[in-house]
Amino acid sequence: MEKLKQLLHQVKNGGISVEQALRELKNLPFENLGYAKIDHHRSLRRGVPEVIFCQNKTIPQVVEITRAMIKKGNNVLGTRASKEMYEKVKEIAPDAIYHEDARAFTILREKPVMNRGIIAVITAGTSDIPVAEEAAITAEFLGNKVERLYDVGVAGIHRLFLNMDVIDRAQVLIVAAGMEGALASVVAGLVDKPVIAVPTSVGYGASFGGLSALLTMLNSCAGGISVVNIDNGFGAGLVAHQINRLGGVEKQ
Amino acid sequence: MEKLKQLLHQVKNGGISVEQALRELKNLPFENLGYAKIDHHRSLRRGVPEVIFCQNKTIPQVVEITRAMIKKGNNVLGTRASKEMYEKVKEIAPDAIYHEDARAFTILREKPVMNRGIIAVITAGTSDIPVAEEAAITAEFLGNKVERLYDVGVAGIHRLFLNMDVIDRAQVLIVAAGMEGALASVVAGLVDKPVIAVPTSVGYGASFGGLSALLTMLNSCAGGISVVNIDNGFGAGLVAHQINRLGGVEKQ
Amino acid sequence: MEKLKQLLHQVKNGGISVEQALRELKNLPFENLGYAKIDHHRSLRRGVPEVIFCQNKTIPQVVEITRAMIKKGNNVLGTRASKEMYEKVKEIAPDAIYHEDARAFTILREKPVMNRGIIAVITAGTSDIPVAEEAAITAEFLGNKVERLYDVGVAGIHRLFLNMDVIDRAQVLIVAAGMEGALASVVAGLVDKPVIAVPTSVGYGASFGGLSALLTMLNSCAGGISVVNIDNGFGAGLVAHQINRLGGVEKQ
Amino acid sequence: MEKLKQLLHQVKNGGISVEQALRELKNLPFENLGYAKIDHHRSLRRGVPEVIFCQNKTIPQVVEITRAMIKKGNNVLGTRASKEMYEKVKEIAPDAIYHEDARAFTILREKPVMNRGIIAVITAGTSDIPVAEEAAITAEFLGNKVERLYDVGVAGIHRLFLNMDVIDRAQVLIVAAGMEGALASVVAGLVDKPVIAVPTSVGYGASFGGLSALLTMLNSCAGGISVVNIDNGFGAGLVAHQINRLGGVEKQ
Amino acid sequence: MEKLKQLLHQVKNGGISVEQALRELKNLPFENLGYAKIDHHRSLRRGVPEVIFCQNKTIPQVVEITRAMIKKGNNVLGTRASKEMYEKVKEIAPDAIYHEDARAFTILREKPVMNRGIIAVITAGTSDIPVAEEAAITAEFLGNKVERLYDVGVAGIHRLFLNMDVIDRAQVLIVAAGMEGALASVVAGLVDKPVIAVPTSVGYGASFGGLSALLTMLNSCAGGISVVNIDNGFGAGLVAHQINRLGGVEKQ
Amino acid sequence: MEKLKQLLHQVKNGGISVEQALRELKNLPFENLGYAKIDHHRSLRRGVPEVIFCQNKTIPQVVEITRAMIKKGNNVLGTRASKEMYEKVKEIAPDAIYHEDARAFTILREKPVMNRGIIAVITAGTSDIPVAEEAAITAEFLGNKVERLYDVGVAGIHRLFLNMDVIDRAQVLIVAAGMEGALASVVAGLVDKPVIAVPTSVGYGASFGGLSALLTMLNSCAGGISVVNIDNGFGAGLVAHQINRLGGVEKQ
Amino acid sequence: MEKLKQLLHQVKNGGISVEQALRELKNLPFENLGYAKIDHHRSLRRGVPEVIFCQNKTIPQVVEITRAMIKKGNNVLGTRASKEMYEKVKEIAPDAIYHEDARAFTILREKPVMNRGIIAVITAGTSDIPVAEEAAITAEFLGNKVERLYDVGVAGIHRLFLNMDVIDRAQVLIVAAGMEGALASVVAGLVDKPVIAVPTSVGYGASFGGLSALLTMLNSCAGGISVVNIDNGFGAGLVAHQINRLGGVEKQ
Amino acid sequence: MEKLKQLLHQVKNGGISVEQALRELKNLPFENLGYAKIDHHRSLRRGVPEVIFCQNKTIPQVVEITRAMIKKGNNVLGTRASKEMYEKVKEIAPDAIYHEDARAFTILREKPVMNRGIIAVITAGTSDIPVAEEAAITAEFLGNKVERLYDVGVAGIHRLFLNMDVIDRAQVLIVAAGMEGALASVVAGLVDKPVIAVPTSVGYGASFGGLSALLTMLNSCAGGISVVNIDNGFGAGLVAHQINRLGGVEKQ
Repeated sequence: MEKLKQLLHQVKNGGISVEQALRELKNLPFENLGYAKIDHHRSLRRGVPEVIFCQNKTIPQVVEITRAMIKKGNNVLGTRASKEMYEKVKEIAPDAIYHEDARAFTILREKPVMNRGIIAVITAGTSDIPVAEEAAITAEFLGNKVERLYDVGVAGIHRLFLNMDVIDRAQVLIVAAGMEGALASVVAGLVDKPVIAVPTSVGYGASFGGLSALLTMLNSCAGGISVVNIDNGFGAGLVAHQINRLGGVEKQ
Repeated sequence: MEKLKQLLHQVKNGGISVEQALRELKNLPFENLGYAKIDHHRSLRRGVPEVIFCQNKTIPQVVEITRAMIKKGNNVLGTRASKEMYEKVKEIAPDAIYHEDARAFTILREKPVMNRGIIAVITAGTSDIPVAEEAAITAEFLGNKVERLYDVGVAGIHRLFLNMDVIDRAQVLIVAAGMEGALASVVAGLVDKPVIAVPTSVGYGASFGGLSALLTMLNSCAGGISVVNIDNGFGAGLVAHQINRLGGVEKQ
Repeated sequence: MEKLKQLLHQVKNGGISVEQALRELKNLPFENLGYAKIDHHRSLRRGVPEVIFCQNKTIPQVVEITRAMIKKGNNVLGTRASKEMYEKVKEIAPDAIYHEDARAFTILREKPVMNRGIIAVITAGTSDIPVAEEAAITAEFLGNKVERLYDVGVAGIHRLFLNMDVIDRAQVLIVAAGMEGALASVVAGLVDKPVIAVPTSVGYGASFGGLSALLTMLNSCAGGISVVNIDNGFGAGLVAHQINRLGGVEKQ
Repeated sequence: MEKLKQLLHQVKNGGISVEQALRELKNLPFENLGYAKIDHHRSLRRGVPEVIFCQNKTIPQVVEITRAMIKKGNNVLGTRASKEMYEKVKEIAPDAIYHEDARAFTILREKPVMNRGIIAVITAGTSDIPVAEEAAITAEFLGNKVERLYDVGVAGIHRLFLNMDVIDRAQVLIVAAGMEGALASVVAGLVDKPVIAVPTSVGYGASFGGLSALLTMLNSCAGGISVVNIDNGFGAGLVAHQINRLGGVEKQ
Repeated sequence: MEKLKQLLHQVKNGGISVEQALRELKNLPFENLGYAKIDHHRSLRRGVPEVIFCQNKTIPQVVEITRAMIKKGNNVLGTRASKEMYEKVKEIAPDAIYHEDARAFTILREKPVMNRGIIAVITAGTSDIPVAEEAAITAEFLGNKVERLYDVGVAGIHRLFLNMDVIDRAQVLIVAAGMEGALASVVAGLVDKPVIAVPTSVGYGASFGGLSALLTMLNSCAGGISVVNIDNGFGAGLVAHQINRLGGVEKQ
Repeated sequence: MEKLKQLLHQVKNGGISVEQALRELKNLPFENLGYAKIDHHRSLRRGVPEVIFCQNKTIPQVVEITRAMIKKGNNVLGTRASKEMYEKVKEIAPDAIYHEDARAFTILREKPVMNRGIIAVITAGTSDIPVAEEAAITAEFLGNKVERLYDVGVAGIHRLFLNMDVIDRAQVLIVAAGMEGALASVVAGLVDKPVIAVPTSVGYGASFGGLSALLTMLNSCAGGISVVNIDNGFGAGLVAHQINRLGGVEKQ
Repeated sequence: MEKLKQLLHQVKNGGISVEQALRELKNLPFENLGYAKIDHHRSLRRGVPEVIFCQNKTIPQVVEITRAMIKKGNNVLGTRASKEMYEKVKEIAPDAIYHEDARAFTILREKPVMNRGIIAVITAGTSDIPVAEEAAITAEFLGNKVERLYDVGVAGIHRLFLNMDVIDRAQVLIVAAGMEGALASVVAGLVDKPVIAVPTSVGYGASFGGLSALLTMLNSCAGGISVVNIDNGFGAGLVAHQINRLGGVEKQ
Repeated sequence: MEKLKQLLHQVKNGGISVEQALRELKNLPFENLGYAKIDHHRSLRRGVPEVIFCQNKTIPQVVEITRAMIKKGNNVLGTRASKEMYEKVKEIAPDAIYHEDARAFTILREKPVMNRGIIAVITAGTSDIPVAEEAAITAEFLGNKVERLYDVGVAGIHRLFLNMDVIDRAQVLIVAAGMEGALASVVAGLVDKPVIAVPTSVGYGASFGGLSALLTMLNSCAGGISVVNIDNGFGAGLVAHQINRLGGVEKQ
C-alpha cells in the first residue's frame, strides 16, 4: 500500500510518467533465470531470508539459484538438500554449512536479528529427528534460540516430565511425532503456549505415510495446537519464528 | 472333536445308525425362528451367555429372540437397545434391567462365575462414556469386577496420574477415547498389562467418525495395545473378560 | 514442578506427613460431579478461563457444569451451544450472552486482561461465518481485540486487496474457508505474520466435508500457515490468543 | 452417419453387395500390428493428428507404431517418452524433435492449421513445469500459439498481477499447480474465460500425490474452471485446443 | 489494469488527490449488506450476470441479496433454491420463474446476448436430470441455445447412437452421469469437441457419493474431457457458456 | 448385426428407401414419456423382462413407467420400492405382489422360462436378509429356483457345514455379507462353482458403509469369487441368472 | 459329506477303529514341505489343477512346490512368475512353457477336459494386455477355448462394434480395463451374458492404482457385471471357467 | 507411586535434600547417547526385556544401543533387523542369534521366566510367515511356549479343522493374515479364548497394503478378536505374552 501511495505522489509531482509508473511496477523486482523468477525484494517484503526447497530440483538449478541469491548478499537456507547438492554449492559459497540430520545447508552472510524467546523442538522418537532438525535449523537460521528435547514420546512419558524445565523455558514449542502422534496432545495439555505440531511419515502399516499422526494432531482435545504438513519441518520452523518474534527481539 | 469321537463310538456300538448320526449332527442344536437360528448350545460351546445385538433389529424380533433364550434359563445381554425395546422385553422378563448410559439391558437368571482380577474401564472424555459403559456392563454381565475411571484424557493428563491406584489394581484395562485417541498410548506407556483400546466416534471434522482415534491406537508406540472396532464397547468387554478369566475365578 | 518442590519442603519441615503429601496431591484440585471432573485450578494452570464444549452434552449437564464454574467466579464460554441450552443457562446466570452466529454463550464475571495486538478474522464466503464467529468470540472472550473481514474469497480477490489495512493492522490472522480453501494461502502470501487456517465443512461433492479445504491449507506453498481441525473455530481462537499474548498486554 | 447413408446408397444402386458393405465397414479402417490397431482414419474422424502415450510401452512398440503412422504422412506426438525412446524413433524419423521438459517428441510432416486465439500456460512453481510443458507442446503441435507464464503461484501473488497482460491476451488458460493448487482459483477469479486446471503430483506429505491439488481445483469457488487428471498435461493441451479452435483459424 | 492507468492519469492531472485516489479504489465498488458484499461491477468485470448460490443461505438472506441485485437492473439466477425461497423472491420480483427440475429461479430484466453455437446437455439416467437441468438453465440464462438428450447411458448405448444428430449439431457438450460415469468417455470418443463432464452423486454403495463417477471421468482415455465438481451443474453451464461464446454471438 | 443386414437387403431390393432405412433405425424402438425412454424391444434384445430401479424416482414416475410396460404384456420387477409405491402400482396392476423383505414388487403376466439349475442365496447374518431377498426375488422373477440359507456366518461356522447339502445342490451361489464379509471366502473355499459375492452395508464403525466387506471379498484368496456393488442384490440375482441359464432350461 | 458317511460306515462295520478314523481324517491328505502344505487331493476336491501364485515366493520355493506337484502327475500353472523362475522350473520340467505377456508358466501332463463354450477376453488398451493374458492363459489351461479382442476401448468405440461377432460367439466375457474402466459397462450393455470385469492398475494420477476402474465397474448401470480384484487376471480366468463349464463339455 | 513415596520419606528423614530429590528424579534413570536415551530401568518398570526397533536406524546406531543394553546384562531383541545389522551386532555379542524368517536377532543373557500357557501362532498363507515369525520369536523371547500352525487359510479351511488340537491346547491365539484376512474371524468363531489378529500387507490391488485385512479383522462378527497394526508381529507377540502371563508362570 505504501509503495502505491509513493508512486502516486511521484506521478502527481511529475517525477515519473504514467507509463513509467506502470512499467516500474512491472519490471523492477524480478530477474529472469529462465525457469525461476527470483524475487530480490522478497526478503524485505516477506521478512524472511531466501529459502530454496531443493527437492525436485536439479543440482545445477540449485547452484544457479544460490549464486543469484548470494550475489545480493542474502542469507540462504537450502532445505531437502542432498550432500551432493551441498558439495556443489560449497564450490561457489565456501562458507556454506551442511546440517546432515536436517538435510539442509545454510549460508550466513549477515547475522540475523535474534528473537528474545526460546523455541523448544521436541520429538517422540529418534526417527523423527530429521524433521525436527529441519525445523530447528530453520528457526536458528531465522534468528531464534532453539532447545532440543528428543525421544520423549508417550511410550515413556516420564522422560517428558523429567524435562519440564525445557518446556517451561520455551515461548513456542514444536512437536514432531510420527506413528500415533500423541505427544503433541500431551505437551499441549501441560502448557499454555503455542504448540506447532509436525506429523512425520515415520511408521508403517496403518500409519499411512503420516496420515495417522496428522489426524491425531488435528483432533487433539488439548487446545493450543496447530498443525503443519506431514514432514514439513521447514514450515514448523517458519511459523514458530513468526510467533516467537512477537515476543520481541534482543538488543543489538 | 470330542463330540465326533463320541458319535463314532455310538455308531460303532450300533447305538445309532449312520443315517441317525448324520441327522443328529444336522438337526439337534438349532431351532428355527424363521429369521434367526438360535444356538442353545452356544453358551456352552463359546463359553458366553447369550447376547443380542439389537441395532438393526425390530422390537418384535428382539422380544422373540429374548423369549427363546430365557425359556432355556440363559442369562441375556441386549446391546444397542433402545429404552423402547427394553420396555417390551420387560413385559416378558420383569427382572430385566436397563442400563441407560450403556444402551443395554440385562436379564440375570443365574449368577455368573466371577473372575478374580479387576477390569479398569477408562475414558478420555465424558462423551466416550456410552461406549465405555457398554464395555463395563458387558464385562460385569460376564462375571468381572469393573472399576470406572472417566474423563481423564490427555488434555488434563495429571488427572490420570492422580488415579494410578485404579490402574495398579486392574489386571486388564479398557481405554475408550475419541478425537485423537492418545489416552490409550499414555496408559499403555505406564503399565505392563493388556490394554484393550476402543476408538469412539466422538469428535467432528477430521475425526472422520472415529477413524482418527482408530489409526492413533493402531499406531501406538507403546506396546501392549490391541484394538477393537470403533464404538465396539461390547467387543472390548468380551475380550477383556476372556483375558481376565486367565487369571482364575473366585471360589464359590 | 514448583508445587512438587514446595511439597517436598513441607515434608522436610515436617509440616505435613508423607501420607498427607500424597493425599493432597491426589484429592485437592478436583471435585466430582459424577460425569465430569471440573478442574477449578485449570484456569490458573492452563491460563484460560473455563470453556464448555456443549455439543454431545445434554442441557442439564451443561447447566450443572456452568453452575459449578460460576460458583468459583470464573468466566465461562460455552461453544456449540444451542439457543435452547442458552435459555436454561440464563436462568442460573442472567448475565449470560448468546452469540447466535457463533453458536456460543459467554458469562463474563471478571474483565479479562487485554492483549495489545489485534487478531484479524477473515472468511472466504458468507457460509464460513459461523466458524469464523466461533473463533472471534473465543478470542474476544480471552482478552483480544478482533477485526472481522468476511466474504473476501479468491473468487473476488480484489475485495481482499482493498482491505489490506485490516491485514496490516493485525498481529495474528485467522482465515476460515471451505470449498477449495485457497484464501489462507493467498493471505499468507501477502504477510509475514502467523496465519491460523481453519478449514470449514462448507461445500458439496468433492469437498468431502471439509477435507478438500484441509488438504489445501496443509499443502500451502506460502509459509507461515498452521492449521486446526475442520470447523474448529474455538481452537483457532485459542491458538491465536496464545500467540497474540506474546506481543504483550495492555496496561490496566 | 454420413458414411452409413453413402453405403446404403451404394447398396441400393447395386454398386456393392450387402456382404461387401458389411465387410467394408468391418475391415477397411484398421491394420493389425498384433498388439495395437492403428486407426488411420482417426486423424480425420477425431480431428487430431496421431498421438502415442509412450509410458508403459516398450521402445520397440513405440518405434513400430511411429513407423506405421509416418508411413501415412501423419504428424506424430509421443508423450511421456524417455530420451532413450526418442533416440530410437529418430533413427526412423530424423526430423523428430525432443522436448526435454515436456518428456515428449514431435514429428511434423505437415504444417497444422493454426487457431487464431492464444493459449496461456501458467504454473504455480518451477516443479510444475514438466506438466505445463506437456500441455504447451501438445497445444502447439495441434496448431495453437502458446504463451508461458511460469512460477507465479499464490505464495508470491504479486508476480501474477504484474503479468496480467499475458492473461488478458489469451483466449483459453491452462493452469498447472501442485501442492495446494490454489492458483487456478485465483486466475479464474480474475478472468471471464475458460480455465483448464491441471493438478500436478508435486508436493509431499498430505498432498497425496496430487489429490490435494485435484480437490482444491474441483471445489473452486471461482466459476469457469474445469479440471483434468493429475499430471495430465496432454489432456489439458487437447481440451484447450478444442476450445481455442472455436474462436476460428488463421487465414492460410 | 486500465482502471489503474486512468487513475494515474487523473492523479497526474491533479483531477484527484493521492488520498482520494486511494480512497476511491477502496470504497467505490461495494455496498455492505452486513453479511455479504455485493459487487455491482461484477457483471461487467466477470462478464456474467449475478448468481446466488442459495444453499446454506436463509430465505431472508436470499431475498435481500436479490432485492439489491434487481435494483441495479441485473438479471438474476438463484441456484439450489427451494420452492419456498422462490415464493418469497416472487413477492419482490413477480417476473421470477422457478425451474423445478433444476431447483433454480431466474429473473430476466434484460435479454442476454445470444451465442451462436448450441450446447448439448446429455444424461446417462433419469436421476441425473436435476444436475443436468441446473447446467441447462444456467447456460440458457447466460445466453445459449441448449438441446437436451436425457437417459442415453451406456447400459443402452444404441439410444445414444440413434441421436447422433444432436451431438453433431452441438458446439459444446455437457455430460452428467452418476454411478459409473462412463457416458462421458463414450461421448468424447465420438466427437472432436469440448466435453464438460459433471459427475453426479446418483448411485449407492461403492459410488461413494459421486466419487466413482468423478474418478471415471478424470481417468477417461478419450481426450477432450474436462471435469467439474460432483453435482456442479452450475459450474458446467458456466464453463460451457464461456467456451461457446468463443464461437461468436448472434447478430442483434 | 442381423438387423443391419436385413435392412441392407431391403434397401437393395428397393423395399424401402435409404431415407426410410435411416428413419426406421432412429424412430422405431422408443416411445417418449418425457422423462424416460422406455425400450419395448429391450426384453428381447437384452433377454431380461423389464426392471424399474425405484429408488430416487417419484411414485407417479414409477406408476407411469409400470403402466407403459404392462401395456406391452411384459413382466415387471420394481426394486427398492417402498410399500407406498406398491400400493399405487397395485391400483393399475391388481396382480402385483409386494415382497417386503426384498423391498420389491413383481407383476407376472407370462410364466418365465425356468432354468434347470438351482441358485443358493446365503447370508452371514439376519441383517443381510433384505439384500439377499432382493437377489432371491430377482432370480426367481427371471426364472430360477432359489434355495435360501440365512444366518450362517463365520461367527458360527458349524451352521454352514451342517447345511452343506444346500450348497451341494446349487449350481450358482450368491453370498451376502456385511461387517467383515468373510463368509464368501469360506463358501468359495468349499465348492468349485461360481460364487457371486454381495457386500452389504450392514455394520458400524470401521465397516465404512460396506467398504470393509467389499474389500474382503475382492481380496479373497479362495478363487471363484466375483463381486457386485455394495447392497446390489438385484445385480447379484441378474448375474446368477445369466450364469445359471448356461446350464440349460427346463422342458416346457 | 460323502467322505464322512463312508467313514461312518467303515466304523460301523468294524473296518476301522474309531482312533484310526480320526487319524485318517487328520493325516492322509497332506504332506509337509515345511513352509507349505500341498493338498494332492485338491485338484479332485476343488476341480482345478494345481496353481502356484509365484509372487512373494523365492525361486527355490517355486521349484520345490512344482516338483511335488508334477510327481503326482498334475498339470501346473505358475502365475506372476518371472522368466528367471521359469528357467529354473524348466530344469525339472523340460515341457514347461513360458507365456511372456501373461507372466505365467504352464506344465501340461494331461489334456484338460474341454468346455464347449468360448470365452472372449477383451481389453480397453494395449497396456491391459498382461492382465488379460493372465486371464486367457488361465482359462485355456483349465480347458477353455479363448478368443482375444484387444485395444477396443471406449475412446474408439466403433472398433468394438466392428467386432461384435467375437462377442456374439462367446458364452462368457472377460473385460480388462484400467484408467476409467468404462469398457465393461459398454460390453455388458450390448450382451445378455455373464461379464467378468477385471480392473487393471494401468493409469496414473487419479486412477489410484486401479481404484478408479474398480469403482467404475462396481457401479456399472449395465446389469450382468461382476468384478474381481485389481489386476487379478487369474481370478477372472478361473471364474470364467467355472461359469463356462456349466454350458457342458466337449465329447472326447 | 512407590518411588515417590520412598523419596518423600528420604526427604523427611533428611536423608537427601529437596534439591537432591528433584535432581535424582531427573538424572538417574537415563544415559545419553546423543541420539537416544536408553532407559536401563525400563525392563523393571515395563516388565519387558529391552527391544530395539531396527527399521529406520543405521547399523552403528543399532550396535551402539545393543552395546549399552548388554553392558547391563539385559536380554535384547532386535526386530526388523537386516542380516547385515546382525553381522555387526554379532561382533560385540557372539551369542546373538539371527531368526531369518522373523528378520530379528536375539541375545539371551538370562533365561526368561516361562509362562505356563501356550501361544498358538496361525497364518493364512505362506507369505504371512515373516510377520507370524516376528510374533512367535517375540513371544518366545519373553518367556512363552509357542506352537506354529501355518498356511491354513480359508481357501482350504479343512486344513484348519484337522489341526483343532493345536487350537485347543493354546491359551492365547495369534492369527496373521493378509488379503481378505478372514481367518481371524473363523478361528475366533471356533474358540472362546483371546485372539490377537495381525493384518499383513500381503496381497495386491484392492488389498491396499493391508488395509483390507485390517478392516476385515476390526469388523469381525466373531467376538473375542482384538487387532494390532498391519505387519506388527512384535506388537502381537507382546500383547499375547502379557495376556498369557495372567495364566501363571512355571515353577523354577
